[in-house]
Amino acid sequence: MKILLTPGPVPVVKEIRNAQTKEMITHRSKEFSELYEDLCTRLKRYLSAEEAYVITGSGALGLETLVLNLCEKEEKVVCFPNGEFGEKLVETVKVYANPEAHTVEAGKGWNIERAKEAIDQSNAQVLAMVYNETGYGVRNHIKEICRYAKSKGMLTIIDGISAWPATELDMKEFGVDGFVTGSQKAIGAPPGMALLGISKEGVEKFTSREFIPSYYCDLRRHKKRYEKDRQTPNTPAISLFWALQKAFDLLDENGGLDACVKRHKNAAAHVRKRLNEMGFSIIAEPGFESNTITGFVCDSAKQAERIKVGLEKSFGIKIVSARGAYKDNGLRIAHMGNFKMSWLDSCLDAIEKIKKEGEE
Amino acid sequence: MKILLTPGPVPVVKEIRNAQTKEMITHRSKEFSELYEDLCTRLKRYLSAEEAYVITGSGALGLETLVLNLCEKEEKVVCFPNGEFGEKLVETVKVYANPEAHTVEAGKGWNIERAKEAIDQSNAQVLAMVYNETGYGVRNHIKEICRYAKSKGMLTIIDGISAWPATELDMKEFGVDGFVTGSQKAIGAPPGMALLGISKEGVEKFTSREFIPSYYCDLRRHKKRYEKDRQTPNTPAISLFWALQKAFDLLDENGGLDACVKRHKNAAAHVRKRLNEMGFSIIAEPGFESNTITGFVCDSAKQAERIKVGLEKSFGIKIVSARGAYKDNGLRIAHMGNFKMSWLDSCLDAIEKIKKEGEE
Repeated sequence: MKILLTPGPVPVVKEIRNAQTKEMITHRSKEFSELYEDLCTRLKRYLSAEEAYVITGSGALGLETLVLNLCEKEEKVVCFPNGEFGEKLVETVKVYANPEAHTVEAGKGWNIERAKEAIDQSNAQVLAMVYNETGYGVRNHIKEICRYAKSKGMLTIIDGISAWPATELDMKEFGVDGFVTGSQKAIGAPPGMALLGISKEGVEKFTSREFIPSYYCDLRRHKKRYEKDRQTPNTPAISLFWALQKAFDLLDENGGLDACVKRHKNAAAHVRKRLNEMGFSIIAEPGFESNTITGFVCDSAKQAERIKVGLEKSFGIKIVSARGAYKDNGLRIAHMGNFKMSWLDSCLDAIEKIKKEGEE
Repeated sequence: MKILLTPGPVPVVKEIRNAQTKEMITHRSKEFSELYEDLCTRLKRYLSAEEAYVITGSGALGLETLVLNLCEKEEKVVCFPNGEFGEKLVETVKVYANPEAHTVEAGKGWNIERAKEAIDQSNAQVLAMVYNETGYGVRNHIKEICRYAKSKGMLTIIDGISAWPATELDMKEFGVDGFVTGSQKAIGAPPGMALLGISKEGVEKFTSREFIPSYYCDLRRHKKRYEKDRQTPNTPAISLFWALQKAFDLLDENGGLDACVKRHKNAAAHVRKRLNEMGFSIIAEPGFESNTITGFVCDSAKQAERIKVGLEKSFGIKIVSARGAYKDNGLRIAHMGNFKMSWLDSCLDAIEKIKKEGEE
């Protein structure tokens, strides 16, 4: 077997994979209503959301759904990109509203001290940023930032696609109005679903709008249909919904959110420790390290390539390059979803071996 | 086993269901590129399209993708709704451009004689309509209509979600510029993918635009990424893509498109014949009957309810009500995808029995 240590799609355990193979049902049935109600009810509770929906589509479509429902055309949206996914969020906002982007250098994270002035001066109606910048493995301090932005009357949108459920989140406590994650990330289901949480203020915003610039992603339609009969306005990816239900079951059986966060945090610390011992430096600034993915810097682009190719060819282990400023000499190991610690050690042992061989 | 004779999701055969359970791969891999290239290449050939894409999302999202890429804000779009799905198309167009809708009474179909005057007088830039109106089981004569509209310089968008591959289609010959179908319909895969075909003129339209009002659905991004490495711009529903590949394999193994159309046409004729023999009338006007779904009129709403509930409770057979004007006294039997003729006969035998019991 090939060990997949990539930041989503992550390996999907057999129980979840097999959940996709039930005999098909129609989405206009009591059976589907029960399935969807279970998913939304649990998701709402997990996130501390006012409402929760599962959208058939990539995580990116879920993020776009938040943006187009919560941001109006003439509104300003203050954004804090610090890597590729933060920049994609700015691109998405650009389609629907007016982004004002502030950046920090590659590997640095956003905290309230760094973001405060921009928030104060922006006069923005909305703040939008990523929780976990997958491209570098940097975790932004969204709790302090969102709470502050909300105290200024803004709505807050968080791309938590590669963060949840491996990183702390409580929408109410964190002051998050729109949250999205992807099914193929730390929850460990197959790709194809975006999981959304919306706060009370977020619901007030989209329900009070007269025009929302999408049909499929118009949350008024999702809300209306859910309230009618716990169904979706369009045909959902039913087999994937079964897989997600199984993934939620496993999350609950394995100790719930706290245990999941702890497992990821410990794995991340272990990976960083071993990489440091080998002499690699971590891309993320201390205090901003990701729970789900660790980016590290190689001596050269050549060494990075040798490690990546060597892992795949000689050990059957797949990791990926870093992005942006570190795309040539940086690599990333994901510890996301249903990984095993032994996989990480196999990967780290192999990196050590390849590194030494290169030095001989 | 419950027999599902609903118009999508349709029953998914075991081979296709099991194709979803392979060990997960990343979409940034050679293996995925090969999978996606195979799907797009075959889809292009099946449809006679210039370009083809698979979008992760419902069929409705695929239709919206066509609309937002091929219609500009100030453009007029002439639409010919004749049922619920035609009306949903008008709603979708309304988000992005200016629809001008013409209607006929419930059960009637559109042909060129009926549509010509509206096309002539519309001065529209785009024509958009459904091929197979699922709500009543009516097949519109899109070939003559689209060819005429194209001769007038219009682009044409066809919602073929419940039609393909069970109904004749050749985008070049039919003059169709944007075509969409859903994975959970007659191709017999699970729901969650929209299959798109675009003509040369369609490609020229979206590539020449400076602004497209979506990020996820912007076909310029899909085209660019496909041309780069045969991948998708965002994470696709990989397990569903495997299922679609298997569904394409089965289509090819079972004689291809012609055999598929013939099988559906024969099943439709058989269902109509037996319903007529029982004294039911067909909702669709003669000459406009659907290949994939037959709507029929019961004596009363009470009889319709008795048949629908009786089929499910006593025979484990699921059919659905008609929509719109026939929602109370109309029922629909789908003969779509990997159904068996014996299922249809079981259903028809049961209807006959329930009908007789009601008359005693």
